[in-house]
Amino acid sequence: MIADKMRPLVENNSAIRAMFEEGKKMAAEYGAENVYDFSLGNPNVPAPESVKQAIIDIMNEEESTMVHGYMSNAGFDDVREGIAASINRRFGTHFHGGNLLMTVGAASGLNVILKTILDPGDEVIVFAPYFMEYGSYVRNYDGVLTVIPPNTENFQPGLLEFERSITKRTKAVIINTPNNPTGVVYSSETLRQIGAILERKENEYGTSILLISDEPYRELAYDGVQVPYVTLFYKNTVVCYSYSKSLSLPGERIGYLVIPDEVEDSKAVIAAAAISNRVLGCVNAPSLMQRVILRCVDEKVNLSAYNKNRELLYSSLKEYGYQCIKPEGAFYLFIKTPEDDKKFCEYCKKHRVLLVQGSAFACPGYARIAYCVSYEQIERSLPAFKRIAQEYGLKAVKEDLR
Amino acid sequence: MIADKMRPLVENNSAIRAMFEEGKKMAAEYGAENVYDFSLGNPNVPAPESVKQAIIDIMNEEESTMVHGYMSNAGFDDVREGIAASINRRFGTHFHGGNLLMTVGAASGLNVILKTILDPGDEVIVFAPYFMEYGSYVRNYDGVLTVIPPNTENFQPGLLEFERSITKRTKAVIINTPNNPTGVVYSSETLRQIGAILERKENEYGTSILLISDEPYRELAYDGVQVPYVTLFYKNTVVCYSYSKSLSLPGERIGYLVIPDEVEDSKAVIAAAAISNRVLGCVNAPSLMQRVILRCVDEKVNLSAYNKNRELLYSSLKEYGYQCIKPEGAFYLFIKTPEDDKKFCEYCKKHRVLLVQGSAFACPGYARIAYCVSYEQIERSLPAFKRIAQEYGLKAVKEDLR
Repeated sequence: MIADKMRPLVENNSAIRAMFEEGKKMAAEYGAENVYDFSLGNPNVPAPESVKQAIIDIMNEEESTMVHGYMSNAGFDDVREGIAASINRRFGTHFHGGNLLMTVGAASGLNVILKTILDPGDEVIVFAPYFMEYGSYVRNYDGVLTVIPPNTENFQPGLLEFERSITKRTKAVIINTPNNPTGVVYSSETLRQIGAILERKENEYGTSILLISDEPYRELAYDGVQVPYVTLFYKNTVVCYSYSKSLSLPGERIGYLVIPDEVEDSKAVIAAAAISNRVLGCVNAPSLMQRVILRCVDEKVNLSAYNKNRELLYSSLKEYGYQCIKPEGAFYLFIKTPEDDKKFCEYCKKHRVLLVQGSAFACPGYARIAYCVSYEQIERSLPAFKRIAQEYGLKAVKEDLR
Repeated sequence: MIADKMRPLVENNSAIRAMFEEGKKMAAEYGAENVYDFSLGNPNVPAPESVKQAIIDIMNEEESTMVHGYMSNAGFDDVREGIAASINRRFGTHFHGGNLLMTVGAASGLNVILKTILDPGDEVIVFAPYFMEYGSYVRNYDGVLTVIPPNTENFQPGLLEFERSITKRTKAVIINTPNNPTGVVYSSETLRQIGAILERKENEYGTSILLISDEPYRELAYDGVQVPYVTLFYKNTVVCYSYSKSLSLPGERIGYLVIPDEVEDSKAVIAAAAISNRVLGCVNAPSLMQRVILRCVDEKVNLSAYNKNRELLYSSLKEYGYQCIKPEGAFYLFIKTPEDDKKFCEYCKKHRVLLVQGSAFACPGYARIAYCVSYEQIERSLPAFKRIAQEYGLKAVKEDLR
């Protein structure tokens, strides 16, 4: 009954999701407190209290047929304007409500913009390590993925390889900063260079190349690190945002696309994106959550909880002899594995430590630790991490991986 | 910037949505009370009070990271089991939670199942008049739509034409009962015959053909009419359900697929559908709304409001000389137009009456009136309907269109 085209998707089902399902089974078998599941980016920090209050207030104050009803496929006008104003205040941009399209999370936003711009055979460039589902999203529209190998020096994108990989068929580039799985934040200098390379190539080929900035981790940055706003560096940029992490609402599927006026054919692109949103079956972003966002537009989850996790985990792992970069954003640590990453992750499972192999991000030799878990889980897991390090004979080294 | 493949979608944007947007503009210009907008199936009857209470209770009783968090791509286990039990109680079926997959409304459910089963060139049969977006959904996966012409006698599907149209490449058939736009409910006899024809053709060609029952209007039936449960008539049936109409939650995008054990390769199909749900970018159905459904699984909107609308509109239109079938379900009236349907709908706009032309459902010569509006709007609109009838010289006829 299943399509032939669907089979590779079934056979190569997400390693992250497979680990998540396995974690649930192990928790049922051994007790949740005895399984150290670091596999999925499912926030442990609760949504801000203001989200709960907004939901209750909306139910009591706003009319049912409006709160739960259809609106334009792009979303409620007041919500789009409210978000545009908030972005403008924070980043000095000049967006209006018409630049925004509310989406069913960032994953759906990516699908919407890819459907809008991709013809079969069009190429989309990503930088390893990257979220593997990008490949499925691109193939949904018969696009071809071009993967730039990882720059394991500092996990900023490899720009020489990037420039060489752009062809006449390059239609889009997806970046993700703060990055999943490395936690690295792309610097202003990196973004400036990416923009310059794209402009050069657009001129050389007479084409238009869309830079798609996937930003679910924008608000999760530590040590005062600023995450530059990508539209300020290159005109053909579309931002793909989600409240999954910034408000701990991953299950609610609420996010947006920003399609600035500066994007070529901007008006046509946003009109077409609204149609993509509809014909892909989303129709519109969930309505109550749109209304919640309007009331919580400048709210954030408690970042200090993630930061506390980051500090404990990073310092402990370094002490045990693991090699990794100290992440500046998101809630992931990306460690070098002492043997083949798949074997290493299998080995860790014996200690009931669940990680995701770097191969699942096109970066073998590493493993991702999602530290969006309770502080207690990290504390409880440390002896297991220590034992694994000892069993591999790891030795602490002072200098960072970088 | 836009894909060539996207252009026809932009050029043939939904007539329904275009009319909805035009209605909003006209309301701003003339005042909402002076525009009789019957274009969109956007329920005017509020969600049941129990939905509001469930939302508030969940916020107060359940934990934030669970309510708003990720779960398996198929949805929360307890929600799927609760819905399965409810269907079993009502229709004598034998589903379990594993047969259900929570979706971002029915439109997304259709996309999920079509992505799961369609290879390029596979054929999908629909019966005119049909919801035109089916065509876009099928083309998303490079399927080919086969349209069975309308049976304007009684708007039950034309079964002779149907049997003749099934080929070796037929992979699916979409039915929609209670029907948008006619309000007709497919009889048990119709479903029995559809099932028999499909079985015959499966045997003849050695193929598997999936019957997809799109059922957002299942709960909206009047005069005690029963809507037969389609899985009872043919084993390769998948049900695509939405709470958009039954609980007046169209903006929330919450629904489900039922993939019974009897479907060929059932286990593989449901596993693949969960992957489709993820890679299309929905990831999962909105989480809070899933939890709401569990608490409101047997609730329904106030149907008597729609019924009151139906009775007033039907009897008035008949009196003025319009020809139509009395709808048994959904919230649409499908009238015969006294001239070309597009011209007629343009003409009605002069009287600020907004309808959707039958051509938008592959059934020219008719127009759809969505009566999911306030009773007052219907009362206020009657003089306009009467004037239009007089201007066209319509005369009341006793017998129904049927």
